[in-house]
Amino acid sequence: VSPAVIASQRTVRQHNRALVLAAVADAPRRSRAQLALATGLTRATISALVDDLLDAGLLAELSPDRGLRGRPGSPLVLNGNGPAGLGVEINVDYISACVLDLTGAVRGSRTEVVDNRRGTPAVGLRRAIALARQVRAQAEADGLAVVAASVGVAGLVDADGVLRRAPNLPRWRAVDLAGTFSDALELAVSVDNEANLAALAQLWFGPASLRDFALVSGEIGVGAGVVLDGRLYRGVRGHAGELGHVVVDPDGPPSGCGANGCLEQFAGQEALLRNAGIAGGDELIRRARAGDERALTALSDAGRALGIAIAGLINVMDLPAVLLGGLYARLGQWLIEPIRAELGRRVASREWAPVEVRVAHLGSDAAVRGAAGTVIKAVIAAG
Amino acid sequence: VSPAVIASQRTVRQHNRALVLAAVADAPRRSRAQLALATGLTRATISALVDDLLDAGLLAELSPDRGLRGRPGSPLVLNGNGPAGLGVEINVDYISACVLDLTGAVRGSRTEVVDNRRGTPAVGLRRAIALARQVRAQAEADGLAVVAASVGVAGLVDADGVLRRAPNLPRWRAVDLAGTFSDALELAVSVDNEANLAALAQLWFGPASLRDFALVSGEIGVGAGVVLDGRLYRGVRGHAGELGHVVVDPDGPPSGCGANGCLEQFAGQEALLRNAGIAGGDELIRRARAGDERALTALSDAGRALGIAIAGLINVMDLPAVLLGGLYARLGQWLIEPIRAELGRRVASREWAPVEVRVAHLGSDAAVRGAAGTVIKAVIAAG
Repeated sequence: VSPAVIASQRTVRQHNRALVLAAVADAPRRSRAQLALATGLTRATISALVDDLLDAGLLAELSPDRGLRGRPGSPLVLNGNGPAGLGVEINVDYISACVLDLTGAVRGSRTEVVDNRRGTPAVGLRRAIALARQVRAQAEADGLAVVAASVGVAGLVDADGVLRRAPNLPRWRAVDLAGTFSDALELAVSVDNEANLAALAQLWFGPASLRDFALVSGEIGVGAGVVLDGRLYRGVRGHAGELGHVVVDPDGPPSGCGANGCLEQFAGQEALLRNAGIAGGDELIRRARAGDERALTALSDAGRALGIAIAGLINVMDLPAVLLGGLYARLGQWLIEPIRAELGRRVASREWAPVEVRVAHLGSDAAVRGAAGTVIKAVIAAG
Repeated sequence: VSPAVIASQRTVRQHNRALVLAAVADAPRRSRAQLALATGLTRATISALVDDLLDAGLLAELSPDRGLRGRPGSPLVLNGNGPAGLGVEINVDYISACVLDLTGAVRGSRTEVVDNRRGTPAVGLRRAIALARQVRAQAEADGLAVVAASVGVAGLVDADGVLRRAPNLPRWRAVDLAGTFSDALELAVSVDNEANLAALAQLWFGPASLRDFALVSGEIGVGAGVVLDGRLYRGVRGHAGELGHVVVDPDGPPSGCGANGCLEQFAGQEALLRNAGIAGGDELIRRARAGDERALTALSDAGRALGIAIAGLINVMDLPAVLLGGLYARLGQWLIEPIRAELGRRVASREWAPVEVRVAHLGSDAAVRGAAGTVIKAVIAAG
């Protein structure tokens, strides 16, 4: 047998491994016989591939179900105690890390309040690396094997994993996140914008019916991740979704991005708290619940600004659903009505193409879960 | 030979006909030998298919070039005297019709000033049908065969070819354009938004290098057609590109769409002329050339408003190029600088992902040429 034939057999086997793994991921607890039906491969091929995947620690076998007819089949699932993905998030006022196992379950997570605007990138990176190591060590003590990491950051990232610019972190410019984390963790590391990762987490871990939506996330910065037909829309150069810099009032206050009157100046966390006259998100929620007029006005003003910017997004992209994430997920009961009111006035196609607005399935941990999720999705796709 | 085999041979032959036709459309004046090279089909198959396509009137053969070596090959081109497409445009203050032959050449076109806001849809449709018949009759007298028509309209169109709503034509609601034109012309008729058709015309008849752009067209209404990787972005329900209804100032004047402060209220043709204190586009250009301060201020204010809305489009979609079409193509020298200034301040990724702003290759006839173009593109794709 020639080397080319051997190589091609290897490729076919690899392809079929990925096919079987995806079939288990799509519908856990399938038996070997059900996998043969689902993939069109022979029973013998399936058995060999499943043995392979069990040996590699990608699949696990549960105790046999008693079938109604014939022999019982052992249900196969993704191995929740094998390869795992590490996610890291660097945001303006917090850092976060988590580990997901292959089934998507969170197997460890930590968040720390850090004011990355005051500290240098060196300090922020040191703390984020320490946090990532803690979460990883805990997961590895539980028997998981962290195989790669992904970092989400509240800024513009290039294809080499370098943070180019973060409007709310003016000191963080040209920071090689991929290189820094890869050296520190001795892992392959990818980097992405946190709004993109949050949208992917919503796609992967939210309701399966959601295939077209914008996830609008608010923390200190405001961003959107747009998913079209089950795929993240990244834009031509990878910088789509910068909703926080859409103009709400062209004569409005100056913004960290160098412009003025951007959505962030009206609906970012700091504008919200400043307008409500208080210091923290929890206090804002407490006061809004108590009916505090200033807090309620701040929230309805923010909702109106969000509605204006989101109406622009819908007018240009025509999306059927908007999910509110991050801090906005916790403020949904006060934001949704003013957002809907603006969409009801400002979306040109509103009568024929309604837009659903609701709170996202995931909250402020969406981005870090999306980061860890990119690792496990890559493991499953590779077979 | 079984019927199934005959059907499958027909399908293969049809597929190969389309392949050859596309190869000629991509690079006119290819010989049979060059087509065999380009498609991978045998010389004999190519000869049979070319004979077919010559008989069907889709290809034409020019007199042989003298080759440097070997036998001369007859250059093949799309037949400019065969099937043709009819395009119709219904805009707010004009109607237009044109015929394109298979090579994309304009073989007849007419435009009429009609105030469709004052007249009923019945009157506007009657005049548009009359115009379409005149242009078609002229083309058919020249030996062309109009095989189908497409109608562009300044409003929201549904998948059945019904105009749902045109913000600048409040009396035109639920108008069955596809049915009306199809009955009147006895042709298959498709209907699309005119900004979409203008963008397609730019893609098909503009420089081949342009594959990712927004065409921003201004007449009385303002719309955008977004092309991504050589394909029109239509949005999830077909209503993308409504740039004219993006908010420029949330406290601005009321708009025909029911909202207020939309781009159209600042940069639509009527706002431009009102602000310049004059009645017509030609006069605006004359005064701007003469340095009239009020005209120049109106243009720079419109440019600023366009820049704010386009910055929002770029922030959410990340596009590398913006083309100004329609009336804006004629006003480019006054609009481009203020637009660039706003993009330079307001696009978050401006330092890493620059945006080119320039005048479109086609002017106010882009939409009607795009309409006729959809017919000829469909003929070529069908083989």
